[in-house]
Amino acid sequence: MPLVTVHLIENVFTEEEKVEMISKLTDTMVEIEGEAMRQVTWVKIEEVPEGQWGIGGTALTAPMIHQMKKAS
Amino acid sequence: MPLVTVHLIENVFTEEEKVEMISKLTDTMVEIEGEAMRQVTWVKIEEVPEGQWGIGGTALTAPMIHQMKKAS
Amino acid sequence: MPLVTVHLIENVFTEEEKVEMISKLTDTMVEIEGEAMRQVTWVKIEEVPEGQWGIGGTALTAPMIHQMKKAS
Amino acid sequence: MPLVTVHLIENVFTEEEKVEMISKLTDTMVEIEGEAMRQVTWVKIEEVPEGQWGIGGTALTAPMIHQMKKAS
Amino acid sequence: MPLVTVHLIENVFTEEEKVEMISKLTDTMVEIEGEAMRQVTWVKIEEVPEGQWGIGGTALTAPMIHQMKKAS
Amino acid sequence: MPLVTVHLIENVFTEEEKVEMISKLTDTMVEIEGEAMRQVTWVKIEEVPEGQWGIGGTALTAPMIHQMKKAS
Repeated sequence: MPLVTVHLIENVFTEEEKVEMISKLTDTMVEIEGEAMRQVTWVKIEEVPEGQWGIGGTALTAPMIHQMKKAS
Repeated sequence: MPLVTVHLIENVFTEEEKVEMISKLTDTMVEIEGEAMRQVTWVKIEEVPEGQWGIGGTALTAPMIHQMKKAS
Repeated sequence: MPLVTVHLIENVFTEEEKVEMISKLTDTMVEIEGEAMRQVTWVKIEEVPEGQWGIGGTALTAPMIHQMKKAS
Repeated sequence: MPLVTVHLIENVFTEEEKVEMISKLTDTMVEIEGEAMRQVTWVKIEEVPEGQWGIGGTALTAPMIHQMKKAS
Repeated sequence: MPLVTVHLIENVFTEEEKVEMISKLTDTMVEIEGEAMRQVTWVKIEEVPEGQWGIGGTALTAPMIHQMKKAS
Repeated sequence: MPLVTVHLIENVFTEEEKVEMISKLTDTMVEIEGEAMRQVTWVKIEEVPEGQWGIGGTALTAPMIHQMKKAS
C-alpha cells in the first residue's frame, strides 16, 4: 500500500540518482513499516519540464536548481 | 465531478489500449453514477518513464512488465 | 503497476458504491491488461469535502450533485 | 505550503501562457494568504499528451480544445 | 480540461477563503484560456492534516503557518 | 523543489511513525540532492480511508494491513 510519489524538475537529477531515490526511499519506508511490506511499497518519480515549476511565481530552470545545489 | 487518473509505465500499452481504457473506465463509472454524470466524468492517463517506477525498490522497465503480462 | 485514482466529492456515493467502483474499475483494467496484472492493479478513492470542488468557479455541494444525477 | 498543480493537455497552451499561469496563479494565492507566504507558494504545471484525457469517454486532442476556445 | 488542484494544511484557511480560492483561481485561468473554457475549468482543494506536511523535515502545524503569515 | 507525497491507508501508522516518515524521507532525499536543497524539500502524507484502497479489486482495511505486517 504505501505509495511514494516524487515530483522533480527535469534535467536536474541523473538516471543513477533517480534509481538511487527509488531504492533508498523504499528502504526508508521498509525500515518504518517492516520488511513484510516491501513488495507493496511503490515509489514513482514524475518529472515536470523546466519552466513549468514556480516558486514564489518564478518559473525554475535546471541551471537555477544546479546553482542552488552548489550553494551547499 | 468524478475524476479518474490512471498512472502507467511508458511503452507498456498501445495508443489503442489507452483509448480503450478512457472509454471503458468512463462507462464503468457511468454504470455506477448514472448517465447524467457522463459529461462531468473525466479520465486522464499519465505515464511514467521506464526506470522511474519501483516496486519493492526495483525500478521497472517495459520488458519486465511485458514478461509479467505473458505469465497469465 | 497500473494505479487508478478516483477523486469524488464527499457524501455523494455510498460505501457500497465505492466498493463497487474499486471492484469494477479493477476488472475493467484487467480486461485490457490481462489477468496476470490483477495483483499489481491498485485503485484508490480520494474524497474532497463538499464546497472544495468548483466547476466554472462555483463550489459544489453533495445536494447539487444529487440534483444533477436525478436529471438523467 | 500552498501547492498548486495545474493539469493541461499538451499543445494547447504556449510557453508564454504557461509562464503567465505560474505567475498569476501565485499572485492570486498570495492575495488571499498574504505576501509572507509567497516563497512557500509553489505552482507546477503537468501536461497530459493529446489523446490521454477523456471527457465523457471521448479522448481529446489539442485541435478539439482549440475549437472549444474559439467558441467564446 | 484545465484542472487545478490546491494542496493546503488543514485549519489554516477559513471556508470563505477556500471558496474565494476556487472562484479567483478559476477567473485567473479563464483570463488566460478564454471565457469559453470556464465550464471545463475545475479547481479542487485537498487538505492535509496538521503534522503531515514537512518542509526540510519538520512537520508543520497550523499555528506555525499562522506565525509565518503574521510575519508579512 | 523535490516534492514527496506519501499515500497511506488510515489507521495503519501512528502519529509517531508519520513524523518519522517525514523526517527520514527528507534525510534520504537530502543525502542524494545535497544539504542546500533541504529547505525546498517537501514531504506530505495523504491518507485514504479504510475500504477506499483496493489491491486486485479487494478493498483493504487497516486490520488486513496489520496482518500483512505481522507476516514479516
